[in-house]
Amino acid sequence: MSKQNNLALLPEYEVRQSVSNALGEDLGMVGDITSQLTIPADMEASVVINSRENGVLAGMQYARAAFDVIDSSLEFEQLKQDGDALGAGDIIARVSGNARNLLTAERVALNFLGHMSGIASKTALFVKAVAGTRAKIADTRKTTPGLRMAEKFAVKAGGGVNHRFGLGDAVLVKDNHIAIAGGIDAALKTVVANAGHMRKIEVEVDTLEQLEQVLAYGIDTVLLDNMPPEILKKAVAMIDGRVLAEASGGVNLGSVAAIAATGVDLISVGALTHSSATLDIGLDFHRG
Amino acid sequence: MSKQNNLALLPEYEVRQSVSNALGEDLGMVGDITSQLTIPADMEASVVINSRENGVLAGMQYARAAFDVIDSSLEFEQLKQDGDALGAGDIIARVSGNARNLLTAERVALNFLGHMSGIASKTALFVKAVAGTRAKIADTRKTTPGLRMAEKFAVKAGGGVNHRFGLGDAVLVKDNHIAIAGGIDAALKTVVANAGHMRKIEVEVDTLEQLEQVLAYGIDTVLLDNMPPEILKKAVAMIDGRVLAEASGGVNLGSVAAIAATGVDLISVGALTHSSATLDIGLDFHRG
Amino acid sequence: MSKQNNLALLPEYEVRQSVSNALGEDLGMVGDITSQLTIPADMEASVVINSRENGVLAGMQYARAAFDVIDSSLEFEQLKQDGDALGAGDIIARVSGNARNLLTAERVALNFLGHMSGIASKTALFVKAVAGTRAKIADTRKTTPGLRMAEKFAVKAGGGVNHRFGLGDAVLVKDNHIAIAGGIDAALKTVVANAGHMRKIEVEVDTLEQLEQVLAYGIDTVLLDNMPPEILKKAVAMIDGRVLAEASGGVNLGSVAAIAATGVDLISVGALTHSSATLDIGLDFHRG
Amino acid sequence: MSKQNNLALLPEYEVRQSVSNALGEDLGMVGDITSQLTIPADMEASVVINSRENGVLAGMQYARAAFDVIDSSLEFEQLKQDGDALGAGDIIARVSGNARNLLTAERVALNFLGHMSGIASKTALFVKAVAGTRAKIADTRKTTPGLRMAEKFAVKAGGGVNHRFGLGDAVLVKDNHIAIAGGIDAALKTVVANAGHMRKIEVEVDTLEQLEQVLAYGIDTVLLDNMPPEILKKAVAMIDGRVLAEASGGVNLGSVAAIAATGVDLISVGALTHSSATLDIGLDFHRG
Amino acid sequence: MSKQNNLALLPEYEVRQSVSNALGEDLGMVGDITSQLTIPADMEASVVINSRENGVLAGMQYARAAFDVIDSSLEFEQLKQDGDALGAGDIIARVSGNARNLLTAERVALNFLGHMSGIASKTALFVKAVAGTRAKIADTRKTTPGLRMAEKFAVKAGGGVNHRFGLGDAVLVKDNHIAIAGGIDAALKTVVANAGHMRKIEVEVDTLEQLEQVLAYGIDTVLLDNMPPEILKKAVAMIDGRVLAEASGGVNLGSVAAIAATGVDLISVGALTHSSATLDIGLDFHRG
Amino acid sequence: MSKQNNLALLPEYEVRQSVSNALGEDLGMVGDITSQLTIPADMEASVVINSRENGVLAGMQYARAAFDVIDSSLEFEQLKQDGDALGAGDIIARVSGNARNLLTAERVALNFLGHMSGIASKTALFVKAVAGTRAKIADTRKTTPGLRMAEKFAVKAGGGVNHRFGLGDAVLVKDNHIAIAGGIDAALKTVVANAGHMRKIEVEVDTLEQLEQVLAYGIDTVLLDNMPPEILKKAVAMIDGRVLAEASGGVNLGSVAAIAATGVDLISVGALTHSSATLDIGLDFHRG
Repeated sequence: MSKQNNLALLPEYEVRQSVSNALGEDLGMVGDITSQLTIPADMEASVVINSRENGVLAGMQYARAAFDVIDSSLEFEQLKQDGDALGAGDIIARVSGNARNLLTAERVALNFLGHMSGIASKTALFVKAVAGTRAKIADTRKTTPGLRMAEKFAVKAGGGVNHRFGLGDAVLVKDNHIAIAGGIDAALKTVVANAGHMRKIEVEVDTLEQLEQVLAYGIDTVLLDNMPPEILKKAVAMIDGRVLAEASGGVNLGSVAAIAATGVDLISVGALTHSSATLDIGLDFHRG
Repeated sequence: MSKQNNLALLPEYEVRQSVSNALGEDLGMVGDITSQLTIPADMEASVVINSRENGVLAGMQYARAAFDVIDSSLEFEQLKQDGDALGAGDIIARVSGNARNLLTAERVALNFLGHMSGIASKTALFVKAVAGTRAKIADTRKTTPGLRMAEKFAVKAGGGVNHRFGLGDAVLVKDNHIAIAGGIDAALKTVVANAGHMRKIEVEVDTLEQLEQVLAYGIDTVLLDNMPPEILKKAVAMIDGRVLAEASGGVNLGSVAAIAATGVDLISVGALTHSSATLDIGLDFHRG
Repeated sequence: MSKQNNLALLPEYEVRQSVSNALGEDLGMVGDITSQLTIPADMEASVVINSRENGVLAGMQYARAAFDVIDSSLEFEQLKQDGDALGAGDIIARVSGNARNLLTAERVALNFLGHMSGIASKTALFVKAVAGTRAKIADTRKTTPGLRMAEKFAVKAGGGVNHRFGLGDAVLVKDNHIAIAGGIDAALKTVVANAGHMRKIEVEVDTLEQLEQVLAYGIDTVLLDNMPPEILKKAVAMIDGRVLAEASGGVNLGSVAAIAATGVDLISVGALTHSSATLDIGLDFHRG
Repeated sequence: MSKQNNLALLPEYEVRQSVSNALGEDLGMVGDITSQLTIPADMEASVVINSRENGVLAGMQYARAAFDVIDSSLEFEQLKQDGDALGAGDIIARVSGNARNLLTAERVALNFLGHMSGIASKTALFVKAVAGTRAKIADTRKTTPGLRMAEKFAVKAGGGVNHRFGLGDAVLVKDNHIAIAGGIDAALKTVVANAGHMRKIEVEVDTLEQLEQVLAYGIDTVLLDNMPPEILKKAVAMIDGRVLAEASGGVNLGSVAAIAATGVDLISVGALTHSSATLDIGLDFHRG
Repeated sequence: MSKQNNLALLPEYEVRQSVSNALGEDLGMVGDITSQLTIPADMEASVVINSRENGVLAGMQYARAAFDVIDSSLEFEQLKQDGDALGAGDIIARVSGNARNLLTAERVALNFLGHMSGIASKTALFVKAVAGTRAKIADTRKTTPGLRMAEKFAVKAGGGVNHRFGLGDAVLVKDNHIAIAGGIDAALKTVVANAGHMRKIEVEVDTLEQLEQVLAYGIDTVLLDNMPPEILKKAVAMIDGRVLAEASGGVNLGSVAAIAATGVDLISVGALTHSSATLDIGLDFHRG
Repeated sequence: MSKQNNLALLPEYEVRQSVSNALGEDLGMVGDITSQLTIPADMEASVVINSRENGVLAGMQYARAAFDVIDSSLEFEQLKQDGDALGAGDIIARVSGNARNLLTAERVALNFLGHMSGIASKTALFVKAVAGTRAKIADTRKTTPGLRMAEKFAVKAGGGVNHRFGLGDAVLVKDNHIAIAGGIDAALKTVVANAGHMRKIEVEVDTLEQLEQVLAYGIDTVLLDNMPPEILKKAVAMIDGRVLAEASGGVNLGSVAAIAATGVDLISVGALTHSSATLDIGLDFHRG
């Protein structure tokens, strides 16, 4: 069943801007010389976009925009929604119209779909691995430059939740802030008073001693960095529901279930966005 | 030893544009609220950027630009060059100056370095796997939207070669062109005459029958798609040096040596750019 | 005494972009034809920027950028800092160099300074009016299109605090959301669970009945809209410190002290940004 | 009665660019999280935009564009035109369609309408105050950075006339030009010959002596700066219709009638654009 | 007869961007003040775009876009296609709709049409002059800044072929490369191995001695620079079909036939793009 | 002798934007592959930019920017100024530094110099042809799209004067306005009252009857379109100095002296910008 209702559309003008930039990379000033040379200018065709492996779909708004920016007369029939599970061979969309233009838009459409679906699919694996626990799978700011909006959307399509979109959304005091400021108290002394009433505060700790120290401040979330499950369990007990507990560091599909079993509220995984493989999605022509 | 001399710098104004876009994603209108709240405005610091795993470095021009765009008074001392092999713990650069600004630029600098070094590192593994054969490892147009220039640079840093940068660089007649045009002859009939005297021509074939057919045309390269090594070997024999032979499809680190052993000239690998994991590169503050 | 240390600089590349747009409006393709016709090309001059009325300064980063974009050889000596109180006649900066270029940059520099200082000055009046209470003066999203970053900075320069920078920073459920959703419960039923762990939640209420209803949800702040002081006082009592209390609606310099006296934590004032008069700041040439 | 016929539409692509920038400020990468969390994705609604105080309308092209850029399927029914007088409670437009999208566009649409209508309304008050005289009310280059086109349009909507749009439109020799050049003769000696045959020339004077001096040059307009009405009357007499007489400096609603009564042709008022309060325009949902 | 089928449309979003920039130059913030002052806002008109001299048409996509960007309700009836021969008086298009908007778009539409048709027309003269030989007429990178895509399209519309679009398309080793590198062997030693398998290689030579030297390398084309026909003939004989022969330098309508008669494959002519006169195309209103 | 003092510099940030766009066309994502392949990365060189024919120089600010944007460490020694007369062989500038970067910037620098100097040179020929008359040579809005600022600067460098920069600068009522409005009186009836006090008014006439009619309005200039010299002489007599007389239409180097001899004040020549040939300017390497 589709999760589409939970996924709000992204601002269309930003999606089109991002798609136009990608088309600009691919077409330059010359355009699709191969299609011009091999296919008659007025030939029509119909193609299908399909999945060649199992996964979760994300990026349909971008794919649709790629065809539409190239030729607004192309017809794009959407058969799957962002968030849908895909099996190998599933048809995601049919696109028909001018044959040259279909092929001109193909690569950019597939590059977005493959990249975003790859992220959604990896996220879904993590989400499945922690099913039955209270833990949510969250992304990080370790995103591919220029694609943060698209990648964070893909995490949601895969069932994850979004952490900060940028440095201004919320306060997250990390190890380097603490080290440079000269310790937790030096770093936190004015944070709570000045963070702003609409901005949450999270602090990273590496040890239970640090945890005890930060719990004295009126913060919202503690980032428990690189702690093994047994220490995480103690941390969760110390926290005792007063703030949210987020685990991070060294999280992979092999370790995430044990981390989730410690009772943490969130597990953030940089690999969702910085190390997902593409989902293999292709475009095929089937003579009608 | 550094490969720097073989890697021309990218156009600096494009690098800065790309870096500024990424900074814009991260800073928004608010900027780095955490550093503002935790670190005195006039504190100075010195940090190191170091590798936490083995790999090949790429992206230093972007990393340097990230710090420079945020604060042109930061000093960036570059200790490794793009193309250098990295071991875990190797220091890549030292950056010093205003402490807030160092941390503000950190994530964007690391996102570029990790992404590009991940591609360079994966490329280097493929290059190493085919050492001793004539095969070169090439990228594809399956790049992350908006990052084609950076990713193709990273492939070169890893020892690979670049395929087309965009649709206009060269002619590459693929399966869908042939299918829509109605066969190889229909597709190729005017290509050689009209491709332009400064543009090379490559044609994709799936079978040896198709190969025979395309060799009748004055093309430059044949793309042998998804052929097992024994068929590739026959194809190379049929081609007999008249055109370049490029293998693609289903190429991974397990299969690439066998493919290279067939005598093909090029092996193109979409996974270099669409599925590389980040290289783990971090930024640390060391007091004193 | 200067408040400069509390005001982090804005991202310089965004400031320059904003200044360049404004210079583009003013110079077009022709440039400053009057200075070209009246002043020799190589004449040097020195000018002062000064205040012609009392107020609070904001916008020096923009003013400096205006001169620098026009002619990077102009010398800009900054005598006052953002957040400084200004008296009529106070000299804010001296700028010297090519006389034509000084005059070419003048209007854009003054337009930023006057607009931003006007906001800072009005904010400071509100802040002063609530001195001695717990209330902070906050801005809103009722900003001048295109200038949100600059205007929110000016509010901080005047001693105020910033509310949301945009729709994505935090959740703020307003009357129209409640009306369209079909009531408070319909609107809030999934908000707390899905807002995201790094995003605060505020809800607007018009009556004490609504207030009671929303206090049942785990939100962070209540926006008490258009309530007279006596009702606000009751609301503050009902809230009893469980969430923050923000008053808004009908706030002006005549009413704000009474509102602050009710014990609310925040008072948001749209007029700071949508209705501030410019602060009269000029540029004078003094021979010799 | 509507003045719409006298107000040419602004270039639509520039209006949309300006609106998109403002939407970008407000939506960022996250979009309208509150509407997404509180309102079902497929809910439809109808809202009205109405005035909460008396004034003159300006900015409908921007408001319409804000809704259209967010969702081109929203229906925007325009009931009032730019230049129309508004009473408190007047309905300006009805907008209907997807409920989330209506609310997402609301703030940007209202920020343009309020800002531009505020300028139009203040302009109309000045125009009314000089009714029956020959004086026209003109704007200046003291506009809000980035909004000059919109603000000068609003001045026309309020019945005023536009002064220069930028430094290249016409020559306006001001006090600083004269001071730096070394006097009126030094400043003006080559202006008339070189200004260009399609460019008018205006010169600012502070005294009747200066006025006499500049009348010897073939200029078009004299800017009489900061002169009290009795001096202005003498200046008008001296000018005797040979050039246009423009008064400026210290003009407010209390002084403008007396200034107009002196017989000047134009009165320029910086406050129209640099110090207008917003006009209170809101958006309401009415069920049913 | 139309050559339209051989001319692929340019990417529409790039055409519109280019047209919008040109409209921005012409309209600024004020727009078409003359049409606003002389023509009623609701007047409709119909105009024709016609040629006032013989030539070849190019630029219709730009002309259509100019009217469409200004007012998408204007009807544009295209009577001639890019590549069509034009006689004096031929009607190229009829445009009808709002009269003000027709005139507002006129100049930008005509500037593109005149410039591009001028190039197409000059190209066609060169193409005609070499008819019956094997020589094709090619453009160069000596294009008007910002208009390379449009100008190279116009060359094709005139029957010419395109040389490199940019520095990255192909390798072209010119005299300065050879001089700086220290001779042909120094310059070429690594070119063939490293140019990339999808990139052709051309080398410029000034003498038959140099020609002999470069023929030893596996290059694709030789650029025979500034050689008189008798030398060109010897060069063609020496080349003997092994590589393509391109002549350049001092080519004009008087000399081109003799150059073509030498048997060269290509003749490149910088003047096509850097020195074509506009084709005189106008817009007329015919009542009724 | 240099005319540099009369030529104000163009806004540098706009020049760099224009140059960056042109570099983007030429370099794409690949950059200057030929220089990378033929010239060692660290080789230094010194080149001269010189003229190969007689003419007038324009565009040095663009040329300098092209080298500076590519590599800010290149040294650019300027030996000639915009407006200087050039003889064949004259050295305009010396540039030295990294050899690859010198060649990478070459084409864009020369394209600007050749185009702008071509316009300046043609303008200078017209100016010389009318020497001794009162006529000035003016440009038109028939400029190359995207280059209006540069081209109008070049006209000034050649000794000409600028007509309108855009549609908003001044009113110019042309034949189509008159035809569509329904005659001169219909077109002009509200123009003088509403043009704005800082905007001049010009009207085009084709006959002496029309001239008589327009002289009844308080306009500034009459555009005498396509009139032979004997009619122009009568027109000048009729005008008798009351307004400026501008001749246009069918102006070329053969006819311009006779036109100027009629006593008109201005002669506008579209061909200055729409049909100038490039001035042949090149870049040479001379081994030191």
